[in-house]
Order: sequence, then structure tokens, then C-alpha cells
Amino acid sequence: MSEREGHIRRLEGWNVPMTIWWDEHNKTVNLIDQTLLPDELEIIRCSDWTCIRDAIQILSIRGAPALGAAGAYALALEAQRYEGDEEGFFETIETVKEIGNARPTAVNLEWGVRRVYDALQTNKGAGISLLKEIALHTADTIVREDIAANKMIGIHGLQIFKHTPRSGIEYRILTHCHAGSLATCGYGTVFGVIRGAVENHIPLRVFSDETRPLLQGARITAWELHIEEIPVVLIPDDAAGWVMKSDKIDMVVVGADRIAANGDTANKIGTYSLSILAKEHTIPFYIAAPLSTIDPHTKTGTDIPIEERDYREVTHVRDVKIASYLREDQVKNYAFDVTPHENITGIITERGIVREPYEQNILSMFR
Amino acid sequence: MSEREGHIRRLEGWNVPMTIWWDEHNKTVNLIDQTLLPDELEIIRCSDWTCIRDAIQILSIRGAPALGAAGAYALALEAQRYEGDEEGFFETIETVKEIGNARPTAVNLEWGVRRVYDALQTNKGAGISLLKEIALHTADTIVREDIAANKMIGIHGLQIFKHTPRSGIEYRILTHCHAGSLATCGYGTVFGVIRGAVENHIPLRVFSDETRPLLQGARITAWELHIEEIPVVLIPDDAAGWVMKSDKIDMVVVGADRIAANGDTANKIGTYSLSILAKEHTIPFYIAAPLSTIDPHTKTGTDIPIEERDYREVTHVRDVKIASYLREDQVKNYAFDVTPHENITGIITERGIVREPYEQNILSMFR
Repeated sequence: MSEREGHIRRLEGWNVPMTIWWDEHNKTVNLIDQTLLPDELEIIRCSDWTCIRDAIQILSIRGAPALGAAGAYALALEAQRYEGDEEGFFETIETVKEIGNARPTAVNLEWGVRRVYDALQTNKGAGISLLKEIALHTADTIVREDIAANKMIGIHGLQIFKHTPRSGIEYRILTHCHAGSLATCGYGTVFGVIRGAVENHIPLRVFSDETRPLLQGARITAWELHIEEIPVVLIPDDAAGWVMKSDKIDMVVVGADRIAANGDTANKIGTYSLSILAKEHTIPFYIAAPLSTIDPHTKTGTDIPIEERDYREVTHVRDVKIASYLREDQVKNYAFDVTPHENITGIITERGIVREPYEQNILSMFR
Repeated sequence: MSEREGHIRRLEGWNVPMTIWWDEHNKTVNLIDQTLLPDELEIIRCSDWTCIRDAIQILSIRGAPALGAAGAYALALEAQRYEGDEEGFFETIETVKEIGNARPTAVNLEWGVRRVYDALQTNKGAGISLLKEIALHTADTIVREDIAANKMIGIHGLQIFKHTPRSGIEYRILTHCHAGSLATCGYGTVFGVIRGAVENHIPLRVFSDETRPLLQGARITAWELHIEEIPVVLIPDDAAGWVMKSDKIDMVVVGADRIAANGDTANKIGTYSLSILAKEHTIPFYIAAPLSTIDPHTKTGTDIPIEERDYREVTHVRDVKIASYLREDQVKNYAFDVTPHENITGIITERGIVREPYEQNILSMFR
């Protein structure tokens, strides 16, 4: 993150672009518009926080850890723009803090906002100039730490590649939605595990669910793998069970939007089904996520709010009508579901793999 | 089927168009182009058998029972067109018989072809004029019998609506792909069950998987329900498990492309996953299919050939590119999967509901 220019950045050693960064020259927060991927690689340049909020709501930026950074940069951006006294500064920050509610399920968004907010509150009276620096430094730190955490997830993830692969030649990982570099601040969570394995010359092939309605699997996961030249096979979501049975899948690894204190995990709609299908085929089912995705204040999965999104995401694919004759009440569009901890073999974090009993072992991670 | 004109026909008492019919005036076999639904309701008018073969291969006509009729009409059409002696007639029929291989999984296609073929063979020497009549009469009979069978499926299907619905107000049926009127010669198999219930004033709501890659659920099932004013909820395929858990689903009812002698059932990719998800949620899982879909010569599901289709069905949605950067070897596009009989609560046929032990009970259906 040493450069602060307008053009696309790439993570060192990989082809994928950075997700979000502060552009010092233009005084904007820049982010890749993920709704246009993979056909167009465009940057959204936000010069105020509402632009970041809108980008979050239309999913130009998505993925729990990336949302944490987006929330943090919203506060940092308004801090940089601010001109006036400290009282007004904190009033502004109080307003921007709202962005933490832009999407309800992923806990990281609020967590990222809270981190900058708390850093500012702690330094009340330090003067505008220093507060501006603190805000930006905290957001940048979230990015740096997230990338570092993902690399550690990759290192701990090596443990799951110990058995003989079912195919005899390569480990076959099934994943859902996108928990790659662009879903985080870089490197990725599920992709942390994948990149960690690739860096250690472990042969693997990733089967990617396309992940309707917004096709993050087809548009981003498979693309991110493709540009890194990591073997990938794209499948329709409804093929997952048959592919587990027919194509010698070794494991399912998915990301998380919020993990409750007991290990219940909210993630993209479809994850719950996969956990059941994995169990039926005695395939281990892993979550890859940083500790920032674990919310100790959420006791169980039933306490996680499940976002329902616009029904037109289902009745259309991009601009193509596939069922535009339907009314809103004729469609269900849950954005997430909750996988009960009993279905989870382990949660791969930057501090190691958490296994049953989750409540106890998650608690000890935070000590 | 008394009219023989070029315009769209509708099944008596319902809004849905007929699937396929002989147009006496134009000497064509007409069929609804299902690839254009629901945006356009267009008729394909076939004046030779290759047109029907092409329509089958690009899925302008699909659904196991409808394919049976398409195969039969291909022979009937060439019989009507034929000018010459009987020897040449049978040579022509022999060529057209190839259409039975246009798609490998659904057994009805070959069954429909075979039925006309056998009727002609039996009447060798009857003279061209009579042979022409026999061919057309046999194809028309397949249509009439199929509709009658579907209505009987609806009557036997009433048995599955005996418990108190989980929602307390209506039976909630989850279905996959399309086994409606247009997947058959009329009325439908799964839709036979649904229409049967509706005609008997049983309150119900159908949850329809959109069914990637070709979206028959979104484009045809939900549309057919919508135009009949039967309550419908469209969901992405990956939401099925969560919807079973959250939306008080009472049962899964799906169609079939081929049922083996032991009850193993090939149907649209995704059916196998649904059967596992239903089991996990203790939701009964039914197949609705006419006896013509049961192939006593196929011993078990492992003997059913699974068609794999063009990878671009997955990388594109209609003309929209969603993952067009991928090569053929980076996509798996199984058109079907096989649900083992252990996962099937019952097979609803025109002669009653077949249950375990399937091998024995299927055999007795044919006696």
C-alpha cells in the first residue's frame, strides 16, 4: 500500500487487483466495482461516504472482510474531507457511523466502522490534524492486518491437505460464492487456504458454484482462479450434490459473513444446503474466516439477522429478464443462510483451526 | 385435438398452450418454442423430421413425456410426406428412427419412436395410405393417453395431501425444473398433482427452483403457475435447503426423465441434492411420472446415461456472458443426475403411488 495513485493496484505476487485503497492524490477512496466483473475492471472513486454506502448496498464491494475495510474508509474519508473544529468533526463522524447498518448480516462492516470510531473517541482532543491521521492509519491498518490474517489462514489451512486425495492426483475443493482476494482486503479467506496450498505446491482443483442470484462464483471466484492459473471448474449451484458424488470432491471450504459464539455460521445463501450435502457424502466442511468475522455478542445462529434483497435479483440476470412477469410477493431472495455448527468440521482462522466444542474453543481464541 | 389449425391451442379449462400437435392444414408438426418462454410465445412449424430433431436438441421441446410425442410425430410427419412404394416408406421410417437418439437420458423419446415404428411394422403390407393413417393416429394417441395419464396422476396425487400442512393454511410444495403441461403432452406430471389438488380446492403454494442452467423453473414452471393463478414463489436453486427449513415446506414433488427398474430416478440436475435436503428435513420426496418413463430394461440408476451439455449453457444466461472467459474444460454441465430409490417416498403414476420395495412394486405395475 505504498503507492497512492488512481490506477489499479495488485497484491504482490498475484494477478488479482486490490479491493479498496486510499488515493492520496485525488483524496478519494477507490474500490473495484465488483458488479461489473469480470467483463469490466472499473474503479469507483468515492469522494464522500454516501458513495461508499451506495457501493456497499448494490454490492460493488462485498464480502465480510472487505466490508470491514469499506466501513473504516468511509469514516477515514470524511475525516480527511472535514474542515472545522473538533466538535463538528465528531458530529460528522457520528453521522457517517450509520454506514455500519448498510447491510445487516456481515458483522465485519460494523466492526470496521467501530474500530475507526473507537480510535477517534480515544483520541478526543488530539486536534483535527492528528485525528485525520489516526482515522486513515486505522483504516489502512485494517487492510494490512486483514491481508496478514488471510496469509495465516493459508498457513493453518495446510493442515487440511494431509489425507490422500480421492482423485489420487489432486485435492478437489468445492466452494460457494466468493471468499477470494476481492471479498477481503487481499489474498482471501477461502482463497487464503487455496493460495497457501498453491504456494506450497499442493496440487488442487477448485469447483466453484456459480452462486445465484448475483453469480459471484461465476463472475469473481472462477475468474480470480482463472487469472491466477489455478485449476477451476465452474458448476451450477444445483449440481453441487451430484458433483460431490461423481467428481471425487475432498472438501468444502467456504467463507463467512458472521460466526456466532457457538460456531453457527451465516454465509451466502446455499451454504447451509452444501453443509448437508457434504455430511451426506462424508466430505469435511470447513469455514475460512478471520476472527473479525466471529461475533461473540451473537450467541447462536438464530440471533443473526438474515438480509432479504430485492426480488429483481432473482427475476433478472444482469439486465436479462428471466421471470420479469412475477411480482415481489412471488419471489424469495434470502441473501444468506445459517449453517449450524454441528455441520462444520472446522473454522480456519488466523490463529488456527477451531473445532468442536465451538463455544469453548472460540472463547479461548479471544483470550 | 379436434382442431387442426396453425394457431396456438390450449388445454381445455386451463390457460397453458398445448405442447405439440399435428397441423393438418399445413401438413406440419407444430410445437411451442420453449427456449423463448415466457417472453415470447412462438410456434415452430416443422415440415420435416430434422426440424423436430433440432428442436429436441436445443430444448425447444423438452420434458420426458413431451419428447415421447415429439419422437412419435417425427415418424408420423415423414409418413405423411412420403410419396412412393412401401419399400421406400420403410426405408424412410428406418432413417427417421434415429431421432430416438437425439437425447440420451429420457427414455420416453425412444419409447415414442418405438411405438409408431412398431405399429407400422405390424401393419406391413397394409398400403401407404393406411400406414400414413396408422402413424398419425399412433402419435395422436400418445398425446391423448399422456394427458389422460397425467389427469390420473392428479387423482392419485390427492393421497399426498392428507396431513395437516406445516404452515397450517396451505400445502407448500417444492419443485425443481419443469414437469408442467409443456413438459408433457398437456396437464403435466408434477402439475398433474398440482392441478388435481387445485381442482379439488386443496389450498397450496408451489416453491419453484429456478433451475440453472436453462432456468426452466423460472421461465416455464413459475410462468405456467402464474398464468393459471396458482400461488407460486420462485427461489434460486441454492436457497432450497434454507427454504425447506424456513418456509414450512410440506413436500418435494419432481418429474423424471427415466426411472430404473429398482426405482432409481434420473431427472434434471439438482434433483439428487433436493432428495438429500428433503431427507435431512424429514420432508417427503415424490416423483410424479407416467409409466412410460419407467424403463424396466434399465436395472439401476448406474445404467442410465447422463447427458453432458454444452458448457456455454453455464457460462452464459441466454445471450448474457457471465463467465465467458472460461474454456470448455473449466465447466461441468451435467444435464441430469440420479436420485437413489432410498431417497424417494413414492412415485406417483397413473396407476397409483408406487412405494418401497420398488423393484417388486414397479414390476407389478406392468403386469
